[in-house]
Amino acid sequence: MTETEVDIDQLTVTTIRALVIDAVEKARSGHPGMPLGAADMAYVLWTQFLRHNPRNPRWPNRDRFILSAGHGSMLLYALLHLSGYDLSMEELQHFRQWGSKTPGHPEYNPDLGVEMTTGPLGQGFATGVGMALAERWLRHYFNRPDFPLIDHYIYAIVSDGDLMEGISHEAASFAGHQKLGRLIYLYDDNHISIDGPTTLAFTEDVAKRFQAYGWHVQRVDGHDRQAVAQAIANAQGEEERPSLIMARTHIGYGSPHKQDTAQAHGAPLGPEEARLTKERLGWPPDRTFYVPDRVYEHMRKAIDRGEAWESEWQQLWEKYRAQYPQLADQFLRFWHDRLPEGWDAGMPTFEPGTHLATRKASGAVLNAIAARVPNLIGGSADLTPSNATYLKGLGDIEPNNPTGRNLHYGVREHGMAAALNGIVLHGGLIPYGGTFLIFSDYMRPSVRLAALMKVPTIFVFTHDSVWLGEDGPTHQPVEQLPSLRAIPNLTVIRPSDATEVVEAWRYALTHRQEGPVAILLTRQSIPVLDRSQLAPAVGLHRGAYVLAEAQGASPQLLILASGSEVHLALEAREILQAQGVPTRVVAMPSWEIFERQGDAYKAEVLPSHIRARLAVEAAVPMGWERYVGIHGDVIGLDHFGASAPYKVLMEQFGFTVENIVARAKRLLGRP
Amino acid sequence: MTETEVDIDQLTVTTIRALVIDAVEKARSGHPGMPLGAADMAYVLWTQFLRHNPRNPRWPNRDRFILSAGHGSMLLYALLHLSGYDLSMEELQHFRQWGSKTPGHPEYNPDLGVEMTTGPLGQGFATGVGMALAERWLRHYFNRPDFPLIDHYIYAIVSDGDLMEGISHEAASFAGHQKLGRLIYLYDDNHISIDGPTTLAFTEDVAKRFQAYGWHVQRVDGHDRQAVAQAIANAQGEEERPSLIMARTHIGYGSPHKQDTAQAHGAPLGPEEARLTKERLGWPPDRTFYVPDRVYEHMRKAIDRGEAWESEWQQLWEKYRAQYPQLADQFLRFWHDRLPEGWDAGMPTFEPGTHLATRKASGAVLNAIAARVPNLIGGSADLTPSNATYLKGLGDIEPNNPTGRNLHYGVREHGMAAALNGIVLHGGLIPYGGTFLIFSDYMRPSVRLAALMKVPTIFVFTHDSVWLGEDGPTHQPVEQLPSLRAIPNLTVIRPSDATEVVEAWRYALTHRQEGPVAILLTRQSIPVLDRSQLAPAVGLHRGAYVLAEAQGASPQLLILASGSEVHLALEAREILQAQGVPTRVVAMPSWEIFERQGDAYKAEVLPSHIRARLAVEAAVPMGWERYVGIHGDVIGLDHFGASAPYKVLMEQFGFTVENIVARAKRLLGRP
Repeated sequence: MTETEVDIDQLTVTTIRALVIDAVEKARSGHPGMPLGAADMAYVLWTQFLRHNPRNPRWPNRDRFILSAGHGSMLLYALLHLSGYDLSMEELQHFRQWGSKTPGHPEYNPDLGVEMTTGPLGQGFATGVGMALAERWLRHYFNRPDFPLIDHYIYAIVSDGDLMEGISHEAASFAGHQKLGRLIYLYDDNHISIDGPTTLAFTEDVAKRFQAYGWHVQRVDGHDRQAVAQAIANAQGEEERPSLIMARTHIGYGSPHKQDTAQAHGAPLGPEEARLTKERLGWPPDRTFYVPDRVYEHMRKAIDRGEAWESEWQQLWEKYRAQYPQLADQFLRFWHDRLPEGWDAGMPTFEPGTHLATRKASGAVLNAIAARVPNLIGGSADLTPSNATYLKGLGDIEPNNPTGRNLHYGVREHGMAAALNGIVLHGGLIPYGGTFLIFSDYMRPSVRLAALMKVPTIFVFTHDSVWLGEDGPTHQPVEQLPSLRAIPNLTVIRPSDATEVVEAWRYALTHRQEGPVAILLTRQSIPVLDRSQLAPAVGLHRGAYVLAEAQGASPQLLILASGSEVHLALEAREILQAQGVPTRVVAMPSWEIFERQGDAYKAEVLPSHIRARLAVEAAVPMGWERYVGIHGDVIGLDHFGASAPYKVLMEQFGFTVENIVARAKRLLGRP
Repeated sequence: MTETEVDIDQLTVTTIRALVIDAVEKARSGHPGMPLGAADMAYVLWTQFLRHNPRNPRWPNRDRFILSAGHGSMLLYALLHLSGYDLSMEELQHFRQWGSKTPGHPEYNPDLGVEMTTGPLGQGFATGVGMALAERWLRHYFNRPDFPLIDHYIYAIVSDGDLMEGISHEAASFAGHQKLGRLIYLYDDNHISIDGPTTLAFTEDVAKRFQAYGWHVQRVDGHDRQAVAQAIANAQGEEERPSLIMARTHIGYGSPHKQDTAQAHGAPLGPEEARLTKERLGWPPDRTFYVPDRVYEHMRKAIDRGEAWESEWQQLWEKYRAQYPQLADQFLRFWHDRLPEGWDAGMPTFEPGTHLATRKASGAVLNAIAARVPNLIGGSADLTPSNATYLKGLGDIEPNNPTGRNLHYGVREHGMAAALNGIVLHGGLIPYGGTFLIFSDYMRPSVRLAALMKVPTIFVFTHDSVWLGEDGPTHQPVEQLPSLRAIPNLTVIRPSDATEVVEAWRYALTHRQEGPVAILLTRQSIPVLDRSQLAPAVGLHRGAYVLAEAQGASPQLLILASGSEVHLALEAREILQAQGVPTRVVAMPSWEIFERQGDAYKAEVLPSHIRARLAVEAAVPMGWERYVGIHGDVIGLDHFGASAPYKVLMEQFGFTVENIVARAKRLLGRP
């Protein structure tokens, strides 16, 4: 059969496969196996089902497509290119090269149609769950009879690796519980993993497992395009259950020697095998990066289809705007992530001299904000009362109450973090999620992904130090604080008192372009600082600030502290001042924000000539040397904690005013 | 019914419950709900099934018991105390206090019968899987007809929280695949989590899910002790499938106002409710920490039983030793974690000037060691060829080949890490497991647990920097290196070349009392350093060492580097020396080992008077300030990587000899 005789579906799928082969060969690096195997079903999905507009990848009501098996990135790039997205053939030819739009794994690019960064397995799977929650919330909040403003699906292609990862369990169980029927996941069941056949390690009954989660499960031949289409249609008809379509495919489809082997997974086929594969696929073996005109013509109908869909939606929108102007305004505000006028007018104030855990202050702040910001969505991984994350009187988000304001994620920190990312990525809502700081370890890959995508996910981490006390070292974070600070793009804020908590939330909600924020809060009560005697809490917006200036002379000593250690620093300062040591206390709630300030401000807060610097923080001291220097000292914890009442721990671990004073004097060379 | 009339089973269970209530009340902190609910089934397990010896908690053939729901620690402490372990009533009275043996969550204490640290949910569940793998391996390796030297069960009590965590999925799927029939887990199905009823978030069909994993599942009333006993007996009869016994229990059993509510979970009942609960349980409300003599008498039969079991086993052992002296010697060696004579005699050597990825050097080293150390067990989370962790020709560990030497964990990093911990905790084997460094994030809670328990789990992390190249930022670690260094008790080693890899493994296998080790290895080839011109690689055993001394004069400049950046430092040194700058290069493969050296050695390597110090490491530079000081500089990466060939990335990110030279000169104040 010559090229012109082949039916257009087959010709297009083969074009995709050939592009994949060529790009991987040219890069001498990449993963051809998955795209070759999944090309049929991806083609069906993209041409028959996916409602999107290549000319406006940000169209709010588009279907979302996630390539959870991100190593198959060339499949996505081929589809984007052929469908008319802003991705040229040159970009395909620069696959995996510096500065290209075609990196090894897909990187979030909302102007290109890449809905999220994928590659770390399970993340795409779990992030889609958040997108589906957001879609359902907005659909029920905004839609009116005959006005389906938000009404779309979340599709993903997932791999055996996605399903082996624990996060897929958390996400799938949660999605089943939430009855997220708009999730339609195609499982690229190719029976091959990197080590060899999946039978080496993965013999669970996937269908039964997902049925146990409350999913709708179908099995199809992933190369039978009609069967795939029928399965997707069935899945669309299923509104109550998320769908898993188990599509049996062949990795490295078409490769005479590598199909159905692990060799097809993560390395180029090699010139000879590439040639043989093309021949077997009925493709001219010597042509590279070749797209027949018929294929372009066929695929770029996506542009017309997309523009028609969006223009229909625009008409709907205009009518909606006329009929429901307030809702429409709200929709725009939600969509463009703008806060309403006076959003922070109800912020609580706290009485100096009283004692309050910063987590409780946070709870008060959140409830004040939530009353004025209707798209603020709370949640916790089964620590709602402990995290003080509940938005009171605003209901839970449940299948029968989709526009509630609180999510019970269950004991699923990782699934929660990914869902938060998904809600953010979908757009329209401002979610936060809470757990203990120690359990940030359980969700670290998703926290990292938020940072890598630089999206404004907000993580609430309470019980932020060993001062949680009796629960002991399994629950006491020590290394989590420096470990979070080590993540690029993540802003970590550890407020000094209740008043700074207000500013922490104000910062988080008004600096969303800076990426994700982690707010660290105490379990224990700490003093509300007397701001009439101290610098105002707004200093938090500069990351570090002079909270209490040295008196009597210019400072001889700097004490730097964050969170629950700040009030100890202030008390130590009183004693040192009384003993004739002019002492400045610098509150340092956020290194990252401080680093964003100009050098002049930084030098003002931490003048370089003052060498006697003491940092006080209940965590592994890694990194403080940057601020205290080689002549400075840190009162930190370079060991795990212990189970005991926290006041006992403070004594035992040297977090006392006396010890701060003693260590300060040692620094100053005084007895 | 008076106390003397109550049957002894009921009396003992009530005693346990009363001890739990009293200890939590006295501590004013703790989790009474789970122990009150699970007391019946725990009692049945401990008195009718668990083969253990309270007088020798280290008896090799004991059954292992894991309280995966570690917050119920008082249940374990009550059982240990009553059964005659070295845990006095005073210790129960000091529950959750400084220095007690009864911390808030169980902490690994092999002399007390606490098999592992639990509390972070899912960890106990997943760690047991490793114990079962070890038991099966040793059983098949050592047992001979009529000599069941190793032949025991792994029991655990697990909670809904354990089953919600993703790690439970990884572990359960893997255990089902491996047909670990000796695992018998009691699921404390009390329908309550911290947020409220489990129906808020957890509505999956647990039985069906575990059947899908290939588990044997039973349901019982967890307060019907006969039914529990029958279920455990059934589970014991099931050799091919791990068992989950779903025991419906009532959290806070007996508490008139808090039973079956979340209030019973994590706080004391309160004096009044404690009193009411005791009354309802038929217990004298005014007596605290009361154990009837009959109960002590009954429970302490565990001592006689245990001593009888162990003495029977000792007789078996003596006969075995006579009949199989070589095997017996080997058993002792394995058990006491001793390496055979000449274990490292076959270590490979590497040709200076050639290029080799350190992961490949590691593969050669491992295979050399494995030939002489028959209890070295390899494995990888589906990256076996990439991690170079395979022990060639030694077979896979599978149900039909239980004494193989390689484990295919699947794409289950977290499950792997916990299983590694379990293999180590069981005793008898030396396991290691590999994945990419980036995926250390997926297994961090288990890495932390190894560190907290200070057990010698070995983690192999390859693809240890952005120099993995084309796979891009999703796969390129930058913050993982400092984040691992932040974990107390974890030794991180990043060897400078193939020759140091030999020493890294030598260190890991001979310093097992120091806790877990992470060995970080390159994807890319790097030069094998010419040790005839440089200091020997044995310097690794001091963490940092002078690799190349300044020539011509005492050093004006120190360049510190680890891993793949060391050879760049050496090349830069050549240029600087040629330009008249006496330059010392310090190889710094392990901060932790260096910190264990004396101050004199540290000052010798990093003399305090040399202020011009430049560190070079392809990672977030956090913490290097400790070594380079405020006057020093670090060439690091304070941002994520990018997808491109690694040599391009090295140029773009300033990891070139030219840039090192330029930055060094800037430090020295030279143009």
